[in-house]
Amino acid sequence: MNNKVYFTPGPSELYPTVPQHMQEAMAQKIGTISHRSKQFQEIYAGAESGLRKLLQLPDEYEVFFVASATEVWERAIQNNVQRESFHLVNGSFSKRFYETAKELGREAQLHEVPFGQGFDVESINVPETAELVALIQNETSSGACLPVEDINRFREKASDDALIYVDAVSSLPYPAFDYTLVDSVYFSVQKCFGLPAGLGVWLVNDRCMAKARALQESGLSIGSYHTLPTLLEKALVSQTVETPNVLNIYLLGKVLEDMNRKGVATIRQETEAKAAQIYTFLEQSTVFSPAVENPKHRSKTTIVANTSIPASEVNSHLAKYDLQVGSGYGKYKDSQIRIANFPAHSMEQVERLLEKLRELEN
Amino acid sequence: MNNKVYFTPGPSELYPTVPQHMQEAMAQKIGTISHRSKQFQEIYAGAESGLRKLLQLPDEYEVFFVASATEVWERAIQNNVQRESFHLVNGSFSKRFYETAKELGREAQLHEVPFGQGFDVESINVPETAELVALIQNETSSGACLPVEDINRFREKASDDALIYVDAVSSLPYPAFDYTLVDSVYFSVQKCFGLPAGLGVWLVNDRCMAKARALQESGLSIGSYHTLPTLLEKALVSQTVETPNVLNIYLLGKVLEDMNRKGVATIRQETEAKAAQIYTFLEQSTVFSPAVENPKHRSKTTIVANTSIPASEVNSHLAKYDLQVGSGYGKYKDSQIRIANFPAHSMEQVERLLEKLRELEN
Repeated sequence: MNNKVYFTPGPSELYPTVPQHMQEAMAQKIGTISHRSKQFQEIYAGAESGLRKLLQLPDEYEVFFVASATEVWERAIQNNVQRESFHLVNGSFSKRFYETAKELGREAQLHEVPFGQGFDVESINVPETAELVALIQNETSSGACLPVEDINRFREKASDDALIYVDAVSSLPYPAFDYTLVDSVYFSVQKCFGLPAGLGVWLVNDRCMAKARALQESGLSIGSYHTLPTLLEKALVSQTVETPNVLNIYLLGKVLEDMNRKGVATIRQETEAKAAQIYTFLEQSTVFSPAVENPKHRSKTTIVANTSIPASEVNSHLAKYDLQVGSGYGKYKDSQIRIANFPAHSMEQVERLLEKLRELEN
Repeated sequence: MNNKVYFTPGPSELYPTVPQHMQEAMAQKIGTISHRSKQFQEIYAGAESGLRKLLQLPDEYEVFFVASATEVWERAIQNNVQRESFHLVNGSFSKRFYETAKELGREAQLHEVPFGQGFDVESINVPETAELVALIQNETSSGACLPVEDINRFREKASDDALIYVDAVSSLPYPAFDYTLVDSVYFSVQKCFGLPAGLGVWLVNDRCMAKARALQESGLSIGSYHTLPTLLEKALVSQTVETPNVLNIYLLGKVLEDMNRKGVATIRQETEAKAAQIYTFLEQSTVFSPAVENPKHRSKTTIVANTSIPASEVNSHLAKYDLQVGSGYGKYKDSQIRIANFPAHSMEQVERLLEKLRELEN
């Protein structure tokens, strides 16, 4: 039995109801049923409608299930960019989206600030020729976030035809997006939704759909089984093109029922309350300090701290109490720790974590 | 509680040990651990070595975990075909691979025989210019198979540089391939490995790797996160590029331990013994008959029968006994049934199914 509580930034703690839902899934043989059955279509439709409700998603958005957020990067470029994309880069994951565009032969432009910094949106010029503007609402590697009010300013900055993409991999459902001011948002289920990994969710509006169709009609290859038109064709009958991760779609639907019962407002309030506790601790600590300087740019869901004690030693200490935080990303492996503050993490667990981190100051 | 036994051709019955492995996975919090942790690397390495042992895979082969066999079709074309591929087509899935090549802008050639027929390999001419030869060992839609001895003749038929790809989605580990005479084999875990869906396995040899590198060096885009070189870079440290379906990789490793304990020879013998029972029944039945005429081309793992009673009525009858077969594929939905004969299906379950199908003859 593993009793450890994981504050790793994803995969992370499962939402508390997941073990019970998994037991029910096994009893109902959800791993066995056909992905072309009526039973699966109901599971799919339930997950989709649960998500639409939680996120208050406008009708002009489609919900697509793919394998990972990493896949979304590739599909976004294939389906929505003929020549040029523009990327805000301030960490490893936003950089990876930029690199994906280049690997796929596109002209990718970037506006880059150092790892751990947020963006001064006022100063950013979006090229007139950019067809896709890649924003990163929450950079999981550095703990920097882009506030929703800043995201909302890009519609005016970009050309009329540009599609605004928002990486919310490790923050949704926390940010209350204005979906009418962006065109696509995507996330992974192993972060704030507290599920096992192996499913990415890609939300696109009718503008993304139209662009994909236009590229396809122009003779450009926009991919094969996961083009936007192909995804939509199956989504309209609550199915996927390939045999998907049925079990995870089932679990997502169940967790969304739980989350909707609780209400997204409560989830957001709890996220903020726990984040406040963590940041207050970091600011007062003699060992740790918030890695992101500007409080406005500090993520509420993936909180990164500089540490004067190597991250590996921090985790050795925490292990005695069955606790674990994430180590820093890449070259910050030992000089930073990352603390996930997801809906699965309770205030009690956060308080216990901070209590044990505090012991390192003695 | 769902007590039905599913003979659907995938997703299908879970391998009998899966519920117990899933319980253990939840107790060990496998859905929570990081995909960059040592614990995950051990899980990955265990699944890979279990597969190498079961399939007696030569060292020059790499094992890659992707999202689905559908994904393999796309990646195979991107990584291994500059201009032209050649496809044996005799059903919906082999046709789909051919169409994938065309969607990705390649010149795809095909040798097509009617749905439900096998191939007369003697008569097939492989174009000298084909860079990839797509063989389908087991056509899940029609129940036609390509015997291993026929597969082995394509190395001589194709040009020296051509890569021979084998679709074994719904048959491995049953076919005892000569891996030195082919270059890539792929399958999905929700068929004969008895796992929940959401994971494809792609086996490639060094010739496939070399071709991908040559295409990349020539300046062709071979994709982004799932190019063969990128997959290999991570596989060498027992990791994946993206956050994968960790739970399924864990379950695959556990089922492979169980299968290796039993031994692949026993699994193959049992598969043949159950298939013999099913085909004997079909040949003697007044309602059903084998859909594939030539016994040599009849699949041992996905057995398709013509039915004079609509498939939906067959399943209505079977439902009374908590049994279900697959309906026919596509336009054969009601005129055929498909019976999965996977390692998860016991002889006792097969006998019970045949007993209840026999009642329809009265």
